[in-house]
Amino acid sequence: MDNTNSKNWDNDHFMHPWEGMDDIGQNDRAFIEASDGVYVTNDAGQKMLDGPAGMWCVQVGYGRDEIANAMAEQARQLAYFSPFNNTNSVATEFAREIAKRTPGDLNHVFFTTGGSTAVDTALRFVHFRNNLLGKPTKKKIISRQKAYHGSTYLAAAVSGKERDRLWLDKPDELAHFLPNVNPILRTPDQSIEEFLDEKIADLENAILELGPENVAAFIAEPVLASGGVIVPPIGYHKRCIEVCHRHDVLYISDEVVTAFGRLGHWFASYDVFGIQPDIITCAKGLTSGYAPMGAAIFSDRVIADISGSDGKGATFSNGYTYSGHPVSAAAGLASMQIIEREGILEHVQTITPHFQERLQNLSNLPLVVDARGMGLMGCIECSYDPDHGSSLARDYELGANIDAKCQENGLVLRPIINMCVMSPPLVISPDQIDQMFDVLEDAIRSVD
Amino acid sequence: MDNTNSKNWDNDHFMHPWEGMDDIGQNDRAFIEASDGVYVTNDAGQKMLDGPAGMWCVQVGYGRDEIANAMAEQARQLAYFSPFNNTNSVATEFAREIAKRTPGDLNHVFFTTGGSTAVDTALRFVHFRNNLLGKPTKKKIISRQKAYHGSTYLAAAVSGKERDRLWLDKPDELAHFLPNVNPILRTPDQSIEEFLDEKIADLENAILELGPENVAAFIAEPVLASGGVIVPPIGYHKRCIEVCHRHDVLYISDEVVTAFGRLGHWFASYDVFGIQPDIITCAKGLTSGYAPMGAAIFSDRVIADISGSDGKGATFSNGYTYSGHPVSAAAGLASMQIIEREGILEHVQTITPHFQERLQNLSNLPLVVDARGMGLMGCIECSYDPDHGSSLARDYELGANIDAKCQENGLVLRPIINMCVMSPPLVISPDQIDQMFDVLEDAIRSVD
Repeated sequence: MDNTNSKNWDNDHFMHPWEGMDDIGQNDRAFIEASDGVYVTNDAGQKMLDGPAGMWCVQVGYGRDEIANAMAEQARQLAYFSPFNNTNSVATEFAREIAKRTPGDLNHVFFTTGGSTAVDTALRFVHFRNNLLGKPTKKKIISRQKAYHGSTYLAAAVSGKERDRLWLDKPDELAHFLPNVNPILRTPDQSIEEFLDEKIADLENAILELGPENVAAFIAEPVLASGGVIVPPIGYHKRCIEVCHRHDVLYISDEVVTAFGRLGHWFASYDVFGIQPDIITCAKGLTSGYAPMGAAIFSDRVIADISGSDGKGATFSNGYTYSGHPVSAAAGLASMQIIEREGILEHVQTITPHFQERLQNLSNLPLVVDARGMGLMGCIECSYDPDHGSSLARDYELGANIDAKCQENGLVLRPIINMCVMSPPLVISPDQIDQMFDVLEDAIRSVD
Repeated sequence: MDNTNSKNWDNDHFMHPWEGMDDIGQNDRAFIEASDGVYVTNDAGQKMLDGPAGMWCVQVGYGRDEIANAMAEQARQLAYFSPFNNTNSVATEFAREIAKRTPGDLNHVFFTTGGSTAVDTALRFVHFRNNLLGKPTKKKIISRQKAYHGSTYLAAAVSGKERDRLWLDKPDELAHFLPNVNPILRTPDQSIEEFLDEKIADLENAILELGPENVAAFIAEPVLASGGVIVPPIGYHKRCIEVCHRHDVLYISDEVVTAFGRLGHWFASYDVFGIQPDIITCAKGLTSGYAPMGAAIFSDRVIADISGSDGKGATFSNGYTYSGHPVSAAAGLASMQIIEREGILEHVQTITPHFQERLQNLSNLPLVVDARGMGLMGCIECSYDPDHGSSLARDYELGANIDAKCQENGLVLRPIINMCVMSPPLVISPDQIDQMFDVLEDAIRSVD
């Protein structure tokens, strides 16, 4: 396939997320053109296993006729309705099916267009709610270093990846960041229990120092995904939510990555970590990436005390033309039915030990600093000079070298700088897991 | 069709945009279930002409097999690719086709998930750019009363509809609002030319008072849509952009509603109003509403002075999982091909005089305060007490009464309070225009 025109058009006209200003118009991006199951094919016809599942999202794998047909049928029957003025049974049914799968009383599904707008909506709601409750100062959101919650102005304000914060403005007064919760950062004489105590104290001290009357919510990915698959110590989430609720601080569980099977359950908050959040945000796996959609899901409790006779005539003036888009809802319903019918949650639970074992086996390789993960999320962190810390340039180089070698051997890796992150389609087989880790192992050895 | 379950689920689980807190769980929303051309059908089987085209978006009409098939084919072939790591020929081709149709050098298409994220992206870019240019104080955005630019935290900050601003927090320091530009608000002794001079002076005085070193951009819908189809005086746009450029202020033309044929052209900024904006935002008609997508389109000029060797290694850390979604791009390309092949832009130009004539003919009806419009956008503003101003409650009541009567007679109207806004699918025929205005006229007479 001759993609000369497309290559020029990509450079001339398609401005990508995280576009580098030095390189704009000079990129040589890979064209991904076709797909099947856990594999994608580039414009040279090379078939590769898709390590990141697009971007943590293609849960049921590629090429699902059933989803394509559901979308087409919905587009033919009713491609759009205004959620401001009316409603529709497909969007309504999807809201109901989601609510059936959320923990406890998380019953109110506010559809958005992706994860960023889900978080933007959740945070605007928290502010709105505190205004209605007569707590106008209670607005600060506590987040964590390395957290990623999206890239609207407000979602970016609570995202803690330092390099993303250069050159862009943020409403910094709204956010407070806690230190990194990655257990590998604990001091040599610190036990994991002591590290956990310290992280919990970080949260409580922050609330007390800012003043509980000024803190609206704590937002947290159960496992920090694009920050590098950071898994907090066991018990972290339960103790955090206890601290939050002791100080009247809402707990927002950002499950954009962890929901819809990535950790073997519809939602990870309760089934994996035993907590009942006040708000859950989700996207990605919600439609297996087949159509743009996200959702902020609110508990009965956070609605009850500002609605009905306590509603003060207030309108939550937030929402989108595409909130509850019927074609996206049809894609989401079809994806959910596939997950259920094929037992994909159980499949993830079954293959997770093999995935995590193969991941851990790489920890002894040269260049590997850490191997960590949970469910079908994994990260191999590499460094050319583990004992002395590498420069950012060297880290990028290392990641790029590993990536190139993986691509040569049929694996899409796309590391986050020096972190080889894996989150394959959930339908991956044990053999395909072996293929993925074999290629990665060879690549790491080859660049040593 | 028995929708008892769906009705309960809608109330229990589907939290809508602009949800009223007093009524949550108590709504009786209309279920829109099927569609064909300019008509939609509700769950009672009633077929109605869709006056708002969903919500200013279903340009090519409902039930287009060609778009449904293009989406399904793309979903089967490649339902998702990560625009962070790779690219794809469908998204690239769509970017190229959009850029071909934008005025002048508006060549860089940044795909988003809708209008709100298009505006959020445009404003974040303007801040980013001024940081790179060493102008860190140049950040304020000038907007206008009654403007609507979306509902992320940042997009809402520059939206000027007062009632949307109650109870929600906004970064007010970023925005400055100019007075309403609706010519009906001019004083009895003021000519339209004097009113125009005043509105231009409002803009220039604001820039001078805030200080040009503090003003980053002016954002404006060419015709203020959901604010009530407000058409500024002839010559307004050209004089505004001259003022902006005289003071190094960027001009962002928010064409979420006006682009893709609503005023008879791909984009209205140049072809209708003769201006060459620095940035255009769009959505809705971009895909005829068949799939969520928006775009912020940047001119070569605003990129050139912060890229290449002037790029300082900066990354525009903004973008979405679903930026350039291949299924949305496929829907957009198919919609564009239909508009072109069927001559829909020319059709709009041809039928606009009839639409506007029927609209103006309603201005003599009792209760009608103003009839205004442009292209296939129209607004009939009504009041029970035009000479003394009505209460908000009475205005809502009037709109609801007219709406109910229209629905009875087969027209979806959905007024904005007391403003009967019309923006039908662009494929509407002269007879269907007559049907729409006949029903509306009857409804207004009947509630008098």
